Amino acid sequence: MTEKRTDLALEVRESFPRNHVEVQGVILEKEEYLDGNVQITKVQIRDDAGSRAMRKPKGTYITIESEGLLQGDCDREPILLCICDQLEKMIPSLKRKSVLIVGLGNREVTSDSLGPKMTDHLFITRHLEQEFGVGFMRENDYGCVSAIAPGVMAQTGMEAGELVESLVKRTRPDLVIVVDALAARSVRRLCTTIQITDTGIAPGAGVGNRRKELTKETLGVPVVAIGVPTVVDAETIISDHLECVLQKQGYSEHEIEQFLREMLTRETENVMVTPKNIDESVNQLSEDLAHVLNHCFQKKG
Amino acid sequence: MTEKRTDLALEVRESFPRNHVEVQGVILEKEEYLDGNVQITKVQIRDDAGSRAMRKPKGTYITIESEGLLQGDCDREPILLCICDQLEKMIPSLKRKSVLIVGLGNREVTSDSLGPKMTDHLFITRHLEQEFGVGFMRENDYGCVSAIAPGVMAQTGMEAGELVESLVKRTRPDLVIVVDALAARSVRRLCTTIQITDTGIAPGAGVGNRRKELTKETLGVPVVAIGVPTVVDAETIISDHLECVLQKQGYSEHEIEQFLREMLTRETENVMVTPKNIDESVNQLSEDLAHVLNHCFQKKG
Amino acid sequence: MTEKRTDLALEVRESFPRNHVEVQGVILEKEEYLDGNVQITKVQIRDDAGSRAMRKPKGTYITIESEGLLQGDCDREPILLCICDQLEKMIPSLKRKSVLIVGLGNREVTSDSLGPKMTDHLFITRHLEQEFGVGFMRENDYGCVSAIAPGVMAQTGMEAGELVESLVKRTRPDLVIVVDALAARSVRRLCTTIQITDTGIAPGAGVGNRRKELTKETLGVPVVAIGVPTVVDAETIISDHLECVLQKQGYSEHEIEQFLREMLTRETENVMVTPKNIDESVNQLSEDLAHVLNHCFQKKG
Amino acid sequence: MTEKRTDLALEVRESFPRNHVEVQGVILEKEEYLDGNVQITKVQIRDDAGSRAMRKPKGTYITIESEGLLQGDCDREPILLCICDQLEKMIPSLKRKSVLIVGLGNREVTSDSLGPKMTDHLFITRHLEQEFGVGFMRENDYGCVSAIAPGVMAQTGMEAGELVESLVKRTRPDLVIVVDALAARSVRRLCTTIQITDTGIAPGAGVGNRRKELTKETLGVPVVAIGVPTVVDAETIISDHLECVLQKQGYSEHEIEQFLREMLTRETENVMVTPKNIDESVNQLSEDLAHVLNHCFQKKG
Repeated sequence: MTEKRTDLALEVRESFPRNHVEVQGVILEKEEYLDGNVQITKVQIRDDAGSRAMRKPKGTYITIESEGLLQGDCDREPILLCICDQLEKMIPSLKRKSVLIVGLGNREVTSDSLGPKMTDHLFITRHLEQEFGVGFMRENDYGCVSAIAPGVMAQTGMEAGELVESLVKRTRPDLVIVVDALAARSVRRLCTTIQITDTGIAPGAGVGNRRKELTKETLGVPVVAIGVPTVVDAETIISDHLECVLQKQGYSEHEIEQFLREMLTRETENVMVTPKNIDESVNQLSEDLAHVLNHCFQKKG
Repeated sequence: MTEKRTDLALEVRESFPRNHVEVQGVILEKEEYLDGNVQITKVQIRDDAGSRAMRKPKGTYITIESEGLLQGDCDREPILLCICDQLEKMIPSLKRKSVLIVGLGNREVTSDSLGPKMTDHLFITRHLEQEFGVGFMRENDYGCVSAIAPGVMAQTGMEAGELVESLVKRTRPDLVIVVDALAARSVRRLCTTIQITDTGIAPGAGVGNRRKELTKETLGVPVVAIGVPTVVDAETIISDHLECVLQKQGYSEHEIEQFLREMLTRETENVMVTPKNIDESVNQLSEDLAHVLNHCFQKKG
Repeated sequence: MTEKRTDLALEVRESFPRNHVEVQGVILEKEEYLDGNVQITKVQIRDDAGSRAMRKPKGTYITIESEGLLQGDCDREPILLCICDQLEKMIPSLKRKSVLIVGLGNREVTSDSLGPKMTDHLFITRHLEQEFGVGFMRENDYGCVSAIAPGVMAQTGMEAGELVESLVKRTRPDLVIVVDALAARSVRRLCTTIQITDTGIAPGAGVGNRRKELTKETLGVPVVAIGVPTVVDAETIISDHLECVLQKQGYSEHEIEQFLREMLTRETENVMVTPKNIDESVNQLSEDLAHVLNHCFQKKG
Repeated sequence: MTEKRTDLALEVRESFPRNHVEVQGVILEKEEYLDGNVQITKVQIRDDAGSRAMRKPKGTYITIESEGLLQGDCDREPILLCICDQLEKMIPSLKRKSVLIVGLGNREVTSDSLGPKMTDHLFITRHLEQEFGVGFMRENDYGCVSAIAPGVMAQTGMEAGELVESLVKRTRPDLVIVVDALAARSVRRLCTTIQITDTGIAPGAGVGNRRKELTKETLGVPVVAIGVPTVVDAETIISDHLECVLQKQGYSEHEIEQFLREMLTRETENVMVTPKNIDESVNQLSEDLAHVLNHCFQKKG
C-alpha cells in the first residue's frame, strides 16, 4: 500500500486494514465529552513492536477532536478546558513546573504559522520571577513561563533544535512544550483535531521540514508536543479517493499501487490542501492554544 | 462530463475533448516569447454560439503563462514587460486614459488577497492632478490613476460592485481595471498564469464569491480584468486524476460520472488546493502586477 | 497668544484665560461616573457668537475621559458602557437606524490607524438584510450596519469625502458615524479621552489632513464623529511648557509670543508627540470603539 | 546641567559647552562625502579619562548623517555604500568572517521595531554551508550569515542577552553585529543618522530597556553595534528649548536647572517624540540596513 503522510498517530492506527483487531504493543482507548461533541482518543505505543508497526516512537498520543473548533462563533471554552485536562493528566503537577513554550514554524507561511502566532498570546512570567522573586509569583499564583518562536532555517540559518537546545541549557526549565502545525491524511481533521504527545517532535514532522528532533533525549527534560493538522498532502487526498474507487472495482492492492505510481506526477508535489478559511482558523487556534496554556500555568479565574 | 470549475477561458477551451478541432465562434492563437519561457494564448469568443459553447461572455481573453513567475529569484522584468505589451495592445492609447484600478478580494484571506495587496504598491496620481493641475501631470509624464480595494461583503456589508459603481459615477474615469484572484483547473497554472480580458468580471468568478458583475454594461466605461489563479478546487483535482485513470480503464463517460458522484463527499467542499508557497507567491505577484500597471500609466524609466 | 492646535472642543474651552467665566453662547456641563473614574464633559455651542469664539461649528461635543482606557489590563467594560450611553443620548432610537460607519485615516501610520483598525472588529450586517430580509434581522435583533475604511488620498487618489458621499448616495443609510484619530493639546489626554460630536468632521481635523468635510450638509444625513487624540504637536508641548515658565517670570503675553516665534524652528515641524505605547493603545482603542458600536447596534447580551 | 538622554556618542561630545576645545582622551574627526550630502564623524574614546568624561565605553563611534535617508524617493544606494565602507574599515576582512546578526527590539512597537524588521530582509546562508559545504559557499561567493530577532522580555521571559549568549556559545560565529533603535537628543537626527560602534551594546541603551550588555566581554567575540535614533525623549526636547531661551535671558545654569525641575512633571514620562512618518521611515531603514549587511557579506554585484 502506498504510504500516506500523516503526523497523527490516530490516523496511522486507523490505516491498519482491519481496524477492530489489536495491533501488538499498541493500546487504543476512546472517550466522549460534552454530549459527544468532543472525542478523545488515546493511542499508547508500549513497546518496540508497537513502535515499529506504527512507525512512531513509544509514548502516549492523545487526540482531541471537535468540529466546534472550526466554528468561529461557538462557545469554545468547554472544549478548551478538555484540552487543559488532558495536558494536566499527562504531566503531573504541571502548574508547579517552570516551562519553556516553543512555537515552531514559519510566521510568514499561513499554514505553518500556528506555533509562532500562539506565542504572541502567551502570558509570560519568567522575567517577573527574576525581577520580583519567588514570593511575588506565589502571591499572584503565577507559574514560571518563558517562550520562543525560533523561526525556520531560511530565516535564521540555524535549526530550531539548535536554538532550543542552547536555550534549555541556559535557562534550565523543568519542561518544554512545543506547538507545531501538522499534516493530516483526512481533510475532516484539518483544524478540528489537536494531538498531544509526550514523545516530543521527531525529525521531518510538521508542515515545514523540522530536521532536528526535540525530545527528552536531546533536551534533557520532558518534552510535550501539541500539534494541529492544517494541511493534507495533495497526493494523499487524491490517492485516498482513487484507492476507494478502485477497491470497489475489485482491483488488488498491487494493481492499485501501480495505478497510483503512474498517475501521481510531479505536478502535485508543490501544492497542498488546506481549509478554505485557513487564515481565520490558524488565528483562532493559535489564540485557543495560548489560552489553554495560560490557563494551565497561571492563576485560575 | 462533470463540470470543473475554472475562471480561465484557456482551460475551458482545453476541456473540449478534441482540442485540435475548431469550436465555432471561438478563435485560438498561440505565441511564444523569451525563448519559449513565456507562452501567450489569445482566446477570442466572437459570437453567441462561441459564448454558449464556452459559457463565457464574448470578448478577448489573453493568457500569459510563465514558470518564471513562480521563482522568486529570477529576473522578472522581461516577463512583466510582456504583460504590459498585452495590456497596451488591448486598450489603445492606454497611458492617456484616466483609470480606476480595483483590487478585488479579501486582504485577510491569503489566497484571495492578490487584489488588495496589489493596490498597496500602486503609484497613485489622481489627487496630484486635482491639486497641481494638468500641466504638472504632463511635465512629469504622469497618468491619472486612482485605486480602491473595496473589501468583501462580510467586511463592508456592501457588494464590491455597489462600491465601484458609485465611485465610477462620482469620479468618471475613462477605464476601470480590476485585479482579482482566480480559480484554475490545473495546479500547474497556479501563480504561473495571468489572464487579461476585456469582458470585465462576471458574477461568481474569483476565489471568493463576487456577486455583482463589473462590466462595461454595469459601469458605463470599458472594464479590463486581470486575474491570476491561486486555487484549484479540491474536487477538481481529485476528479481530474480519477477520470484520467478510469478513461484508461475503458470506462464510459457516463460510468465515470456516476463514480465521481458517489465518491465526492461534502468533505472536500471546505478545502482548497494552493501552492505550498502561496503566501510568498501572492506577495510577489501583487508587487508584479502593480509594477506592470505603474509602468503602463506612469513615466517610463 | 500663539494658537495651539487641538481637535478637542473641551481643550479650546479650557484655553480661555478665565476658565470659570461664561463664554457667550457656550454651555459647559460636567459629570462623573464610576466613582470619579470617568469624567464626562458636555460642551454645547449654541449660537454664532459661541461658534466664533470657539472656532468650531455649532453643536454638542461630549468628552469622556478615563485614565482606565490607557491600562490594558483593567476592566474596560463599564467605561465602554458609558460611551454607549452617551451615543444613545445623542441619537434618539439609535438602534433602529441603518448606519454607515466610516473609519478615517491611514492604516499604515500607527497614530492615524485608529479608524481603519476599528472597522476590522465591527459586526457587519447590511448584507444579511439584503440576503435574508427584514424578518431575519428582527428575529436576531440585528441592526443594519455597513462600514468602510476609505483610506487616504496617497492610497486612493480620492478624498475620503468623495468616497463617503458617493456611498451614502448609493446605500442611503439613516446615519453616518465617523471614527478618527485626533490631535490634542495636552499629553495627559492622549489615548485616555474620547470626543463624540454631532457636528461631523470639519476640514483639517484629525491626525492626517482630511480636506473634505463630512457633515449633515455634505452627506444629507446626520453625522456623528467619534475621535480619540493620539498625538500632540511637538510645538504645542514645547510652547505650553515655555509659556508656563515665562508667565511665572512675569513676562507679558506679547513678550512670550515673541520668544516663541524666535525659538520654534522648522525642525519641530516634522515630529510629533505620542504615547510610548501608541501601538498597543491604538489596537486596544480600535477594538474598544468597535465593541461600543457593536453593542449599540446589535443584539444585547 | 540637567542630563539629556542620548545614545549617540556624537551628541554627548556636542554637549560639552565649548565644543571647539579638546576633551582629554577623546578624538574627533569629521569627513564629508557625496558633495556634502553625507557627513561622517568619528569619535574615538581612547582612555579612561575620555570614557569618564563621555560616560561611554572606550572604543570607536562612527556617525553617518544624511538627510537623504529620510526621503523615500531619493537614490539611497550611494549613501548605503558609504555605510558599507565604514563597516569594512572597522572590521578587517569582514567578508570572510562568519557572523550572527541580532535584531534587537520589539517588533510590535513601531519605534523599537527596526532591528527585528531588518532581520526579515537579510540573506541567510549559514544553513547552506551546513548542508552543501564550504565549497558551495566559495563558488557562490557567500559569507556565513545567521540571524536572530530575540524579542523583548515581555515576549519571551528571557533577556535578549541570555538568548544571544547561549546562541553564540552554540554556533560560535567570528563576529556579532547588533542592530537596534536608539534615542537621540536632537530631532534633526531622527531617522537620518546611523551610529556604528565596536563597543557593542551597553545596558539601558536603545529605545526599550535592554538590560544585559552585549559586548566582547560577555560574548567572547567582537561585537559591532549599528543604531539609528528613532525617538527623542519628550523631556529632552522641552528642556533643550527652555534652556536656550533662559540662557539668552541671562539666567545661570543653576537657576535654569531649578526651573526645569519644577516644570517637568510626570506627564511627559509616558510620551515620546518621533518623526511623523516613523512607520515608513523604520520600514525603509530596516530594508536599508539589511541591504548594507547583505552587500558586506554576500556576492558583490
